[in-house]
Amino acid sequence: MDLWYTEKHSDNVGITMKVTKTLFSGVSEFQQLEIVDTLEYGRMMLLDGLVMVTERDEFIYHDMITHPALFTHPQAKKVLVIGGGDGGSIREIVRHPEVELAILCEIDGLVIDKSLEFLPTMASAIDGHHPRVKLHVDDGLAYIREHQDAFDVILVDSTDPIGPAVGLFEEDFYRLVFSALKEDGIMVAQSESPFYHADIQKSMYQNLRTVFPIVEMYQAFIPTYPSGFWSFAFASKKYHPVKDFDRDRAAKRDFYTRYYNEDLHLGAFMLPTFARENIS
Amino acid sequence: MDLWYTEKHSDNVGITMKVTKTLFSGVSEFQQLEIVDTLEYGRMMLLDGLVMVTERDEFIYHDMITHPALFTHPQAKKVLVIGGGDGGSIREIVRHPEVELAILCEIDGLVIDKSLEFLPTMASAIDGHHPRVKLHVDDGLAYIREHQDAFDVILVDSTDPIGPAVGLFEEDFYRLVFSALKEDGIMVAQSESPFYHADIQKSMYQNLRTVFPIVEMYQAFIPTYPSGFWSFAFASKKYHPVKDFDRDRAAKRDFYTRYYNEDLHLGAFMLPTFARENIS
Repeated sequence: MDLWYTEKHSDNVGITMKVTKTLFSGVSEFQQLEIVDTLEYGRMMLLDGLVMVTERDEFIYHDMITHPALFTHPQAKKVLVIGGGDGGSIREIVRHPEVELAILCEIDGLVIDKSLEFLPTMASAIDGHHPRVKLHVDDGLAYIREHQDAFDVILVDSTDPIGPAVGLFEEDFYRLVFSALKEDGIMVAQSESPFYHADIQKSMYQNLRTVFPIVEMYQAFIPTYPSGFWSFAFASKKYHPVKDFDRDRAAKRDFYTRYYNEDLHLGAFMLPTFARENIS
Repeated sequence: MDLWYTEKHSDNVGITMKVTKTLFSGVSEFQQLEIVDTLEYGRMMLLDGLVMVTERDEFIYHDMITHPALFTHPQAKKVLVIGGGDGGSIREIVRHPEVELAILCEIDGLVIDKSLEFLPTMASAIDGHHPRVKLHVDDGLAYIREHQDAFDVILVDSTDPIGPAVGLFEEDFYRLVFSALKEDGIMVAQSESPFYHADIQKSMYQNLRTVFPIVEMYQAFIPTYPSGFWSFAFASKKYHPVKDFDRDRAAKRDFYTRYYNEDLHLGAFMLPTFARENIS
């Protein structure tokens, strides 16, 4: 059977991929979860019918949600990931020797379980055996409400602002994140496609700016996400991601990154005019 | 009828778009040409079944094939475009007041004719009435063979290296371009997707480096091209696109560019690690 999966990125455009096998399909308390094998992108996880990660291009998303904050903060010891149940962000965080504790707070235990079963290269650090990693299956909002002045970096590794993640794009949530961060803390959150999601970006960045003194957008190309042009919000209490970036320190990292590097870090903040305009 | 156009970017992945109308479909001496209306991307031109330009995202490609070279060269007076029969590159070139003559050399007259008929916003400067524009319907190789030391900038606005454009990726062609350029001339050529076309990039940049002393790759996101991550080769006799770039001059331009800007110019050369590796 010649089976193709098509994700519509709007009513009128989408990406289509040849699927060889469905490995898992099920419904959790929160969402529909599917894991399939594709010929071009390897194994792929979908939530509510949207591509979350694929084996072939996950290195881009996970490099870019983690390393810019961790190479801007001079010494991030305690890092929280909200969402990110596939484990890819935690895998990158624990490559930083200065990190003493990386905490995953994922609302949906099924995502963690099936990532461990089917996406072992992503979930390698969340198998329960990593000494610097803790897992919580919990609502991120509830979790950070109980923490004040606790984290150096918080990464919001969420789905789109529909379903369980809708609260993660609102001002109240950003206030909780602000309180949960230490006095020089940094938050990074995925912030959709500047090409397709100008409206979401506009309100998200307005909300962030009412809470954080430093708010910048940076970009990455992610071929399996709508338009391929993706963005992240960098919200910070003290450190600016360009002005306070120690390029030498990033250049001397002792691990290989297939997307991130010390020059790309700077270039990622140099946005196309229309992307700037979305958030100005 | 619910009609969708699907372009396969490999055997196993593609982009699919809702099409409302086919405006033209015909075969020239060189290739199959189609112009269709899509709901998401507006009017779209295809050559041999591949998306060349759409109304919605052409601003990115045309900003990025023209402005980096024209803002690096201190005073480009004579500019040649090889290919680019839709006219979008010429439209951007003539916005630079220092350009005295912009020459289009397109092998396929049908592309020019149908762009004038169906893509007027792109073809506005090639309608025969622009005082600083000349049109030649000719093979680009034959045309530059007849010119020595003639151009400040040559832009190779070609299709993929199949069909009529195959010769435009070879060392012999780059030698002709080198000779056709003045002693401080610059060539820019579209150089495929770093994500899907590592092999083409490797040989193309090797060929360029045997001919030009300065060869750099820069990137742009183009949603309707394979993977959305696209690249251009900047090959130069004298001026380096980053070291010799006059940021102030670019910042003071008196025309609006929806993708290009003076910071993005620099960021475009800051490549992901895997893209660097394709050409190193």
